[in-house]
Amino acid sequence: MSTPTSSSSWDGKEMATESGFEKIQLLDSSDDAYGGVMVDLKESMDSEAFATLLRASIALWIQQGKKGIWIKLAIESVNLVEAAVKEGFRYHHAEPSYLMLVKWIAETADTLPANASHRVGIGAFVMNDMGEVLVVQENGGKFKGTGVWKFPTGVVDEGEDISIAAIREVKEEAGVETEFVEVLAFRQSHKSFFGKSDLFFVCMLRALSFNIQKQDSEILEAKWMPFDEYAAQPFVQKKEIFKSIADICLEKKNNNYSGFSAVPTTTGFSSKRSILYIHKDL
Amino acid sequence: MSTPTSSSSWDGKEMATESGFEKIQLLDSSDDAYGGVMVDLKESMDSEAFATLLRASIALWIQQGKKGIWIKLAIESVNLVEAAVKEGFRYHHAEPSYLMLVKWIAETADTLPANASHRVGIGAFVMNDMGEVLVVQENGGKFKGTGVWKFPTGVVDEGEDISIAAIREVKEEAGVETEFVEVLAFRQSHKSFFGKSDLFFVCMLRALSFNIQKQDSEILEAKWMPFDEYAAQPFVQKKEIFKSIADICLEKKNNNYSGFSAVPTTTGFSSKRSILYIHKDL
Repeated sequence: MSTPTSSSSWDGKEMATESGFEKIQLLDSSDDAYGGVMVDLKESMDSEAFATLLRASIALWIQQGKKGIWIKLAIESVNLVEAAVKEGFRYHHAEPSYLMLVKWIAETADTLPANASHRVGIGAFVMNDMGEVLVVQENGGKFKGTGVWKFPTGVVDEGEDISIAAIREVKEEAGVETEFVEVLAFRQSHKSFFGKSDLFFVCMLRALSFNIQKQDSEILEAKWMPFDEYAAQPFVQKKEIFKSIADICLEKKNNNYSGFSAVPTTTGFSSKRSILYIHKDL
Repeated sequence: MSTPTSSSSWDGKEMATESGFEKIQLLDSSDDAYGGVMVDLKESMDSEAFATLLRASIALWIQQGKKGIWIKLAIESVNLVEAAVKEGFRYHHAEPSYLMLVKWIAETADTLPANASHRVGIGAFVMNDMGEVLVVQENGGKFKGTGVWKFPTGVVDEGEDISIAAIREVKEEAGVETEFVEVLAFRQSHKSFFGKSDLFFVCMLRALSFNIQKQDSEILEAKWMPFDEYAAQPFVQKKEIFKSIADICLEKKNNNYSGFSAVPTTTGFSSKRSILYIHKDL
């Protein structure tokens, strides 16, 4: 079919066998740093042709001593998912536009890394100059209809800094501008969202604006409330974690507590920008 | 075909239309608390029959004002993935045994929650009674061949407490028993693993045993090293984040720093066990 120079990502490549006389077709692939192989299929092809290429490729990778085989199928290649599973691949993870499948072909123990394991959320403790705290009542979810006044909360998006997510959620839910002060505490729990674990960061923010403009779709009401009134709610007093967090916020309000500050830094090897959260008040 | 009482999870159920005269087949489904519908297909079926049931079901769900439609396909139902994508479903997430697809059918903005967004890792600062720190050299990965002595590190599994993961990794890599003391700091970075974000917790542990038995597959060498010698390594001095963390560990060693302690608690509604990490030395 194609010559080696014209091979695209889906029609495989020709490869001379050791004898030099025969040419076999293989899937295009690249090696990773851990003895693995990655196939990245962006366009679709016939599923039977794919199965044939895949079987021939796996035979070669086993000969080569490869370990983990990754196949990334764009959603446009959805017709190839069944063929990959029939060849012994399992799902690894998926995003809206692609599905990642994986197969361990070495004799040694499977050391393939796991999928992303945690969702991350924030709760925002926002004070104004009057010592009042920003609270909301939600239209939906578990708090709907309970009458409980709670801190604005939300999910940290993939690629979003915790501090930025807290500022964004307060702006979205209540229209209030803030700046990040500290992470006061965080909580880890399990089996929370499709079985994933959950990290929830309680962030203290300083209000930079005071007029409230609530979001209509998710927020029933939003207002400034004296801190003592927030903490005195039966729900807050009775639920262990809400009581603990309210106690911490009160200590913070009275300058008797310090959490972790955000310090910009870079990662070790790639020098990517990242944020280090540390205790600065030594 | 089946009567309503005999319907299984895959062969649909019969439902009287408004006229009362006609019966149509629909997929079995359950409602969620957010106006959504979940279809959980554990067994396979014919893909064309599935497509027909799916189209009829979607028509009804639109009439009912449903918003997000979730289809969970066990890997045994891989032959139905293509039909779901052809009906406009996209991938949401996948685990080894299933693929979750989703479609937003309401007129309003899509508010479907995102997939798990973060991987979580730990680094372990382990001291012995001599003021020495536990360090390792790795067989693979980015540190391979660099000669750098580093803290034991590892990935926090889904469902695993951060403190438990730190104790486990130290035991696995160096054979040393420890107890958890504090989270000294944490770092958030982005685009680290298949595009996911990354949270890395620096944990201080107290050594309860001192004999080192290194793991052979991942660890080249493990030993106790005077802290100053660890911190004096050019890599640690030159890389901003390693320098920052070494500085924090030195302050901690000298009792001039306090991180977050782990306090068992329960979550708000379900009273599930969870861990709150807070600053206890007020």
